[in-house]
Amino acid sequence: MSTGLELTHPGGTTPIDAGAGALGAAREWLLDWTRGRTLFVLSSPTVWGLHGDALSFLTGKETSAHRAVVLHAPDGEEAKTPAVAGELWQRMLAEGGKRDSRLVTLGGGSVGDLGGFVAGCFLRGIPFVNLPTTLLAQVDAAIGGKTGIDLPGGKNTVGLFHHPDRVIADSRFLATLPARELTSGLVEVVKMAFLLDPPLFTRVERDLPDLLAGDPEALGPVVALAAAAKVRVVERDPTEQGERKLLNFGHTLGHAIEAELGYRGLSHGEAVAYGLLFALRLSAERGLPAAEAARLRDLLARFGLPPLPALDAAELVGHMRKDKKAREGGLPWVLAARLGEGEVVEGIGFERVAARLGSFLADPWGG
Amino acid sequence: MSTGLELTHPGGTTPIDAGAGALGAAREWLLDWTRGRTLFVLSSPTVWGLHGDALSFLTGKETSAHRAVVLHAPDGEEAKTPAVAGELWQRMLAEGGKRDSRLVTLGGGSVGDLGGFVAGCFLRGIPFVNLPTTLLAQVDAAIGGKTGIDLPGGKNTVGLFHHPDRVIADSRFLATLPARELTSGLVEVVKMAFLLDPPLFTRVERDLPDLLAGDPEALGPVVALAAAAKVRVVERDPTEQGERKLLNFGHTLGHAIEAELGYRGLSHGEAVAYGLLFALRLSAERGLPAAEAARLRDLLARFGLPPLPALDAAELVGHMRKDKKAREGGLPWVLAARLGEGEVVEGIGFERVAARLGSFLADPWGG
Repeated sequence: MSTGLELTHPGGTTPIDAGAGALGAAREWLLDWTRGRTLFVLSSPTVWGLHGDALSFLTGKETSAHRAVVLHAPDGEEAKTPAVAGELWQRMLAEGGKRDSRLVTLGGGSVGDLGGFVAGCFLRGIPFVNLPTTLLAQVDAAIGGKTGIDLPGGKNTVGLFHHPDRVIADSRFLATLPARELTSGLVEVVKMAFLLDPPLFTRVERDLPDLLAGDPEALGPVVALAAAAKVRVVERDPTEQGERKLLNFGHTLGHAIEAELGYRGLSHGEAVAYGLLFALRLSAERGLPAAEAARLRDLLARFGLPPLPALDAAELVGHMRKDKKAREGGLPWVLAARLGEGEVVEGIGFERVAARLGSFLADPWGG
Repeated sequence: MSTGLELTHPGGTTPIDAGAGALGAAREWLLDWTRGRTLFVLSSPTVWGLHGDALSFLTGKETSAHRAVVLHAPDGEEAKTPAVAGELWQRMLAEGGKRDSRLVTLGGGSVGDLGGFVAGCFLRGIPFVNLPTTLLAQVDAAIGGKTGIDLPGGKNTVGLFHHPDRVIADSRFLATLPARELTSGLVEVVKMAFLLDPPLFTRVERDLPDLLAGDPEALGPVVALAAAAKVRVVERDPTEQGERKLLNFGHTLGHAIEAELGYRGLSHGEAVAYGLLFALRLSAERGLPAAEAARLRDLLARFGLPPLPALDAAELVGHMRKDKKAREGGLPWVLAARLGEGEVVEGIGFERVAARLGSFLADPWGG
């Protein structure tokens, strides 16, 4: 089932299929796209074990119209290193990869980020397709052409913009998703909905129990609406010069929390949820109506997040100074002017952030 | 002294300054470009020892308007590895590199290729400037936005298109160039001139003794004309879909020779010179007039190239099959239809190439 959604970007147009059965519907397109070529399929052992069969029409022995090579990267963020990228390039070259070869990513955001980067730099760029298998990747990471790997000093610090030829977000993949992964993805949905799509925000408020339970009937339209919201923003600002920055709502502190925790303890979405709570406080100081801030806070409270570990404000600010969005003059903050309207605020000094963080860390859920 | 040459590409316009004193003339522009930012200067120990002083206005202690960090990569092709790129990214992040940071490459083609790749992927891309210090880089490698690193299986197999903000090709840097480096660069000049600029070819025939001796009066206009020829081709075909492929004249066999020799024994230009001789034979079969083929062969004979080592045709073809320009259907060959007119010929099978290579390797200078 295709949503008819398309992302137009400087390099062309990327169709985005969302919904139950999207992969089956794209079968002929994928076979045509790979015909006569070498196809690399990048996945992780866990995802491949759960969903590899769904790609047997591309990778199975019965396929003679193209040659398929399945590559595995480590599960999760561990995959996103220069060393893993280097090994994949080497393997692809040894397997006869050429400029007309193709790459499919099957996995969560990490596999998509890594695969897009590897495809974008292999022989100066080969086409790829994203098959995101997590909610987070389906609504956010797989859409928009951002690719990247991590350095010890920061996530996504190496990468490039390289758009997939197609994104196929089949919600059937979400059936095997652990509850915390669903929560993490829903935080990103809420992040987008609060600034960009108030009706979607209201829908999430209404359907939250079903969404957290992984009900595909409830998740299907939410994935499609969130993907559409992201597409609208990315189309208007493909290289993140302006409006696209709004997608970083909650991410400035979220990234710092993840880095300070060594990417353990809290998932990305859980860290971003706390980042949203902090951004609400900065937003309130600039005039976000208290009732609207309360709606987002109350919704996040229903997610059943793990408590925020003990953290040091100065250490968090230290990570923010190394944020890749930081410039010599400081760090832009994405805040909410009101429900449905975000703003990028420059000039909030690190000292002021540190002071606000002190009280926030003592009581993150306080108003 | 600016040549007024500019390269217009999909991402903007790159001014290209060529001639003696080009760096001094660009001094104010460079200071403005770096003002208030973190500047990374990437060079190699040898080049930095010879020419680092020329950049003291950017890197010296007296500079307070920006912060400069000098980075060294190994000399030559050794620099172009995923490991070196990873170390540079890590170092740049640790030094506080940000999205508005700048990078200058000072060195030959390897430093430029590596630096462009590192700049293109750091935080998804920061601006950079090429200061090529070899003839080869000044007339070819530094112009056109190709960046890349090597894998054990092939040169420039990982990279992206990322254009510099400016190319400053100061011919004063060429004064310290070893004779073989001059020869290597002149081969690239001859390669372009034969297909794209017959008057430049005639000039090289006339001035060859002075050019091989490194005379800046003779080299200056040749650098400017060759750079202009490259700019014209790249502008008409920025992503190498068509005409730009002509720049690979002599490179298909040249790359295979380099790979088979393990990048030792012959320089890049020397290997390309033998690649040109072989391309002349394939061209002659298709109708290149014998007198024109003889002009290129006779000119190359005056270069005093080292003899071609003993090589095996089958091994060379094996490398060609892994050439990044190879597609499942074969490898396109750049040939000369006549002096001043190149053509890209598809469909010359590897078997036919292997047969022709056998007789070529036995007598490369034969007609």
